[in-house]
Amino acid sequence: MPITTDNPIRNGVDTATLFATLDAVKNNNEIAKFQFRATNRWISGTHNQSTIHGFFGAMQEMQHAGVHVFDADHPAVLVGADNGPTPVEYVLHALAACLTAGIANVAAARGINLTSVESTVEGDIDLLGILGLGKGEVRNGYQGIKVSFKVDGDDPDKLREVVEQSTARSAVYDIVTNGVPVVIEVEAG
Amino acid sequence: MPITTDNPIRNGVDTATLFATLDAVKNNNEIAKFQFRATNRWISGTHNQSTIHGFFGAMQEMQHAGVHVFDADHPAVLVGADNGPTPVEYVLHALAACLTAGIANVAAARGINLTSVESTVEGDIDLLGILGLGKGEVRNGYQGIKVSFKVDGDDPDKLREVVEQSTARSAVYDIVTNGVPVVIEVEAG
Repeated sequence: MPITTDNPIRNGVDTATLFATLDAVKNNNEIAKFQFRATNRWISGTHNQSTIHGFFGAMQEMQHAGVHVFDADHPAVLVGADNGPTPVEYVLHALAACLTAGIANVAAARGINLTSVESTVEGDIDLLGILGLGKGEVRNGYQGIKVSFKVDGDDPDKLREVVEQSTARSAVYDIVTNGVPVVIEVEAG
Repeated sequence: MPITTDNPIRNGVDTATLFATLDAVKNNNEIAKFQFRATNRWISGTHNQSTIHGFFGAMQEMQHAGVHVFDADHPAVLVGADNGPTPVEYVLHALAACLTAGIANVAAARGINLTSVESTVEGDIDLLGILGLGKGEVRNGYQGIKVSFKVDGDDPDKLREVVEQSTARSAVYDIVTNGVPVVIEVEAG
């Protein structure tokens, strides 16, 4: 589908708005400062629930259109009640989702049409770490993650470059590969 | 509620099963090798959807009781259609969920009763990074994350120690603070 000034949508991305947003941020860097948030409450055992709704961005408090609620739990084999995915599985989802959104944006910005993007993310973890049985030699988190993309569209070589550029600009890829400083505060009563 | 051999449940955690699982893993470390997975498919623009169901663990292929499907998208201010939380918000949920599950487990193992655990997770991000406007000086991911816990139960000092121990044994805290090697493979057509 050709893009014209009357039809700036490619891959479902409104490229006119995308480029206008880039220009707006160039003119005022404050617009780019965001704070995302989740609240969580413990239910029972390893079962707990997070709510995602409000965030700060573009110099104002904002809200998602919906209130999003997610359950997390451990499966029975890990002494949970399996009321939801494990926390580490949500990390895999976040990684796939971020890279995939980036693929759609980068492809649209480059004038490349996508027909489908599918991925499988696999994370290998040795639970000796979190169980405290690793004698200090086994980390708690994933030892490695593999993302396998199947991308179809205009041109295979260009599509591979799009995935590379999406990776180079992915927030979750950066978080998961490079780490982030985390501060934990506790009010105990 | 006192724990007896007839009633090994504390904080909703089956401590008898928890300790039996630890013994089983001590006797055969292979039980502890897990692989978690998510599959994702692009829908349109920054909207995509992950499915979480099967995983490998305890030396066999396993499945969660339910098939879990999660939408991710960007909000309108970030040129998306707001069909779900952003990928980076799912990371905050994963971090809160992992620490909270650990708090329940550690407290139960130590014989400490919890009455409530609530948390708020805030992640600060400067989108100049992912927009490619940071001149190489702004990272793509969160610059910092703050987790604020409110924990109520038996004893404030012991509860603070429980949060510390949960952090020291948290898979997602390790992933997010220390990073993980990620391999990305692309099949383009």
